[in-house]
Amino acid sequence: MSDFTDQLQPAEPSGPSILQKERAGSDIDTDQLAKHLLSRNDFLNRQKRILAIIKDIPYFNKKNQLNMARPDRYHLGLARAKTLKRLSIKHNWDDEDYKMADYLMDEMGPYALQFTMFATSIREQCNEEQKKYWLPKLDSWEIIGCYGQTELGHGSNVKGIECHAKWDPQTKEFIIHSPTLTASKWWNGALGRTANHAIVVAQLLLPDAKTKQYKSYGPHQFILQIRDMKTHKPLEGIVIGDIGPKYGYTAMDNGYMLFKNFRVPHSALLSKYSGIDSEHGTYIKPDNPAVVYGSLTFVRAQIIMHARLVLARAVTIATRYLSIRRQFADRDSKDPNAPEEAVLNYPTVQIRILPLLATTFALHYTGEAMYKLYYGTRAQIEQSGDFSRLAEMHAASSGLKSLSTMLAADGIETCRRAMGGHGFGGGSGMIPLNNDYLSKPTVEGDNWMITQQTASYLIKRMTHVISKPNETTREPIDAQLRTYMQTRHTNPSLPILSSDQALVQAFQHRLSHLAHQVYIQRVEHKKPWTDLMISLHNLSRAHSQQLLVSNFYTAVFASTPDPPLNPTTQATLQTLFRLFALYTLDASASEFLLAGALDAATLRDVQPRVQALMREVRPHAVALVDSWSVPDYLLESSLGRYDGDVYNDLFRKAHVENPLNLLTFNPDWRTEEIVMGEGAEGARKRLEALARGVEGHEQRGGGKAKL
Amino acid sequence: MSDFTDQLQPAEPSGPSILQKERAGSDIDTDQLAKHLLSRNDFLNRQKRILAIIKDIPYFNKKNQLNMARPDRYHLGLARAKTLKRLSIKHNWDDEDYKMADYLMDEMGPYALQFTMFATSIREQCNEEQKKYWLPKLDSWEIIGCYGQTELGHGSNVKGIECHAKWDPQTKEFIIHSPTLTASKWWNGALGRTANHAIVVAQLLLPDAKTKQYKSYGPHQFILQIRDMKTHKPLEGIVIGDIGPKYGYTAMDNGYMLFKNFRVPHSALLSKYSGIDSEHGTYIKPDNPAVVYGSLTFVRAQIIMHARLVLARAVTIATRYLSIRRQFADRDSKDPNAPEEAVLNYPTVQIRILPLLATTFALHYTGEAMYKLYYGTRAQIEQSGDFSRLAEMHAASSGLKSLSTMLAADGIETCRRAMGGHGFGGGSGMIPLNNDYLSKPTVEGDNWMITQQTASYLIKRMTHVISKPNETTREPIDAQLRTYMQTRHTNPSLPILSSDQALVQAFQHRLSHLAHQVYIQRVEHKKPWTDLMISLHNLSRAHSQQLLVSNFYTAVFASTPDPPLNPTTQATLQTLFRLFALYTLDASASEFLLAGALDAATLRDVQPRVQALMREVRPHAVALVDSWSVPDYLLESSLGRYDGDVYNDLFRKAHVENPLNLLTFNPDWRTEEIVMGEGAEGARKRLEALARGVEGHEQRGGGKAKL
Repeated sequence: MSDFTDQLQPAEPSGPSILQKERAGSDIDTDQLAKHLLSRNDFLNRQKRILAIIKDIPYFNKKNQLNMARPDRYHLGLARAKTLKRLSIKHNWDDEDYKMADYLMDEMGPYALQFTMFATSIREQCNEEQKKYWLPKLDSWEIIGCYGQTELGHGSNVKGIECHAKWDPQTKEFIIHSPTLTASKWWNGALGRTANHAIVVAQLLLPDAKTKQYKSYGPHQFILQIRDMKTHKPLEGIVIGDIGPKYGYTAMDNGYMLFKNFRVPHSALLSKYSGIDSEHGTYIKPDNPAVVYGSLTFVRAQIIMHARLVLARAVTIATRYLSIRRQFADRDSKDPNAPEEAVLNYPTVQIRILPLLATTFALHYTGEAMYKLYYGTRAQIEQSGDFSRLAEMHAASSGLKSLSTMLAADGIETCRRAMGGHGFGGGSGMIPLNNDYLSKPTVEGDNWMITQQTASYLIKRMTHVISKPNETTREPIDAQLRTYMQTRHTNPSLPILSSDQALVQAFQHRLSHLAHQVYIQRVEHKKPWTDLMISLHNLSRAHSQQLLVSNFYTAVFASTPDPPLNPTTQATLQTLFRLFALYTLDASASEFLLAGALDAATLRDVQPRVQALMREVRPHAVALVDSWSVPDYLLESSLGRYDGDVYNDLFRKAHVENPLNLLTFNPDWRTEEIVMGEGAEGARKRLEALARGVEGHEQRGGGKAKL
Repeated sequence: MSDFTDQLQPAEPSGPSILQKERAGSDIDTDQLAKHLLSRNDFLNRQKRILAIIKDIPYFNKKNQLNMARPDRYHLGLARAKTLKRLSIKHNWDDEDYKMADYLMDEMGPYALQFTMFATSIREQCNEEQKKYWLPKLDSWEIIGCYGQTELGHGSNVKGIECHAKWDPQTKEFIIHSPTLTASKWWNGALGRTANHAIVVAQLLLPDAKTKQYKSYGPHQFILQIRDMKTHKPLEGIVIGDIGPKYGYTAMDNGYMLFKNFRVPHSALLSKYSGIDSEHGTYIKPDNPAVVYGSLTFVRAQIIMHARLVLARAVTIATRYLSIRRQFADRDSKDPNAPEEAVLNYPTVQIRILPLLATTFALHYTGEAMYKLYYGTRAQIEQSGDFSRLAEMHAASSGLKSLSTMLAADGIETCRRAMGGHGFGGGSGMIPLNNDYLSKPTVEGDNWMITQQTASYLIKRMTHVISKPNETTREPIDAQLRTYMQTRHTNPSLPILSSDQALVQAFQHRLSHLAHQVYIQRVEHKKPWTDLMISLHNLSRAHSQQLLVSNFYTAVFASTPDPPLNPTTQATLQTLFRLFALYTLDASASEFLLAGALDAATLRDVQPRVQALMREVRPHAVALVDSWSVPDYLLESSLGRYDGDVYNDLFRKAHVENPLNLLTFNPDWRTEEIVMGEGAEGARKRLEALARGVEGHEQRGGGKAKL
């Protein structure tokens, strides 16, 4: 379609010319820094290779996604998932390749549980016999699985789930049953419309040998078929469905499931660690459950690394667009024709974006440190049965999961708002990013709940340090707490603005102070745990921030990257460290003051220093986000395009790709006609069905619901 | 459809029984408090009357909204808007009735500009002759209008818009033209598909009498027809369309529009205040532009009042659901069968919800104060031409717009996250609330930009106070600044925990301190404006927080409500004041410390006091949100239902109303079939069209785009 707009160009200076200048103006070696950040698992090469395969596949085009009805998003999601699976076979992808394709497609689709929780449970919870039976079916995708733990009435408190599996000694079967509506499985991905098998978590009920009374042995995992392999209808005694639209995860069929005395064989109970003796119906206890913590830490290290890339996406979009966007001339300028300023030059915009840019790096180095800790601890366990660092690792990973997903979720929204009107538009690419990521502060351990685990660990360590002041221990945190207890009465106000090491010490000092305060409340004053929860949360945050700051410090000051980075890059990373640390400190300044880690005079100089550091970072902002190497296909953003051609792309999306513009409407309120020419009667029928939804479906002859 | 789930009920205690107990446990007189809060403009009665009319109209049913495609949301939105217009005539609604219906429908639809900016411009910017011509057409809705100011390249900086209107002295016409692509009108509501007329803001270009060179006289408003009244196609020389999907406002057709030398007559320029002499083509200057500020303040007072109701909605949903939801038993309990706690009993949940509950009241009393200020100032202007309070009013309204929309937008998301998994689900009712409201921090003055106006006013006042220390003035803020300047060297650390008045003084002291600091930087040290922007923003926030705190204090301590509230209600409002003020103080504690408004010892006791205040509020939480009287129809939330029947409603929405559950799918990756029985070929055609969007439309024979 051709019209006079074909001849128009955006006003000068053009986006591409601006980004070109921004890139030319920085000495950061983008490729070198990209390799420094993204070499684990051959990330960069893998991204390039997989992107080339998937980016032009018609089903994988994202351009119409925001226009689609939610049910259609599932239809397309299933088609995409199947295509991906077929591609993985064709190109002989390994797990990492598959994950990369998933990351780039950026859609949590209906096969997502197959290679995550469903596979993990089979691999880690089945005994040898069970594995022999299920693994081939899993690997050939003969069965499609899901993981049914969360219920309508219980999420975080897994021990409270209501679905139960009663052992029938007569038939040697389990009877899986939902005694209430709140016992319904709920939220379970891929369950709603896709899976034909499920891992179901249920209270294991066994009869007492003497009284015959049933007693619960707590939640256990069962594997069972839930739908007919031919008709794909739920089996008799099971009700299943999709729970409906939600914030994000539009293409995923999160489901619900209820059982009415559904019988499964003895072999359904996953029995690597625990089990029941089918002869006598007696319970076989699990060994050391600490093993589970290990893989939890690994999952959480992945969450941190994922958070950094998600935040990098938002920061990439914001940094590029806000470098291009011009608004207002300098208020103090005497020149009435002074050019408008790049929005990113305003300190009020920098203060929202540049600390987040620094945060992507902070998360990176701590993610790397967590991987290292995980592999080191696993080696210790496997080589010498030494579980001593598990508690530390678990505590660190809990608090970091909470803090890093919060930083990323809030950071995305901060970036979006900083982009003004266009940040609210579909061309920003921020809608799916925000909607999907907003689940993260809740899943894999609610962000406000799991911080108790970190705090609990710190109270234990403080108790140990205080009760045994002269004992040496291997927990690294102990030394820090010990130092604090010995020196806290001398004034430690630290020269945080002149010494980077002092900056790290300020975070350590504040953490130790909070740990001691909580110790006094809990251990000395015996305060109820519940009453302390807010302090526990703050304590955990202080611990995670200390880890982020000290890992960042170690990476950019106390170690030499291999291969080394060029001087500008290295210096800029050090500036980013200072920016992250001082910005973080300033946001909780009163905690540092009350801890005596700094004095008021120093604090007064923190905000001006933060602003000075942002001025140092500003010329490198575009080059720094470039290093995160987020491809345009993943960004799916007119505002964040690598080439900077923002306005042409926004216009194209609206003028050429918007299906709403295909029709002409009748705006006259006196007629019920909506689309020109369809008539009032036609419009009424069509729209009533639309408003009614399922009811409307039936009216249109779609038949009764086939739930 | 009947199955075994019909027999199931949620586990005890039931939601309804819990809310009954919560309500019985509080002495708050809900009806009395509701009247106290919602009597302005007969709000409560009006809500009841309009709700009864609209709630059962089929088009107005919201249950299928989250399932719809975005284009369908516009179709339905137009049908709803038409229905509402017809109802308004049938029931003889006045403007307030119409607004109420709009509020309850909760959909920014395609007629929304007709009675807002389009009408406002005609009423306030037209000269008498223009009014005589346009008003009848506006009132009869013979024309449907929109307001075209924002462009692709310029939003906040209206002076920078590129669309221009050149006066042609020969034909005595204006030639409206878009010289670039960024000159395209963009974001303008109702423009995309609906409006046939528009107010267009363009640079007025007039030729110099001697040189004949054109010169811009700045942005001016023009009224013009943009589409054919019969075919509804754009007129020759105009390109129009809808800009596509965005975060919220799904049913609204935000549009774009470009002009190619489009001619309009002399009468198109809205000429109440300014104009051009058609004889000589010379410019007629406007009178005192301060008049505009007045109505801006009124709009912003409405924004504050709207923010309180929107936040009340989120807090209502969260408070009811979190009272019902149980999770975990008390960790210190020795009883293995201890019942699970209501989630709202945990301090980590209270700290997220209860300060927001207090915020709804804080916003309320300041909204009331702003209305009072507005009407008082208007009376002064009209009765005695006294404009003296305009600057104060404008400054207050700018900062408050920024702070109140930020509090509401962030508060909604805080409530959503506090509800865990179900907060992420469609049954929460939080999705449209969040998506639509997230535009507010940007529109009507970007929240980070307009705070400069407040700061600029405060610098002026401080300059006045310092340069004329003995002059009395009528600006109320002057007295406060003067007191600060006189007393700042004596230590003012205030007994904020024992005196409510001292708490207010702490906010005043901190504001004055920041104003003085900024004054020193800007006036004494001549620092560049841009460098100070972060401090200016913080200064404005301090000013708005002081207004919220002092207006709240005045309302609940220094005045007697008429009719009076019962003692529990009055006392609880006072507790809410303390909670709001101390929570707000704690969040910026270091500012108060550095200002010398409190000392470290006092600060240490603030968090424990906040927790104690929350314990006082907790028993009244449900009764307090009930007083905001948000009807279930507006909440559209299983979690927030008045009756508390949360789980049955969540289940019904999923099991009965989810259209995705109507179909059975084929999950086997080896076939391209998606819906059982449609075959691979059928699926491929259908889904390729879906993925392609507009392209797909053409393929399906929908014809070429008729843009």
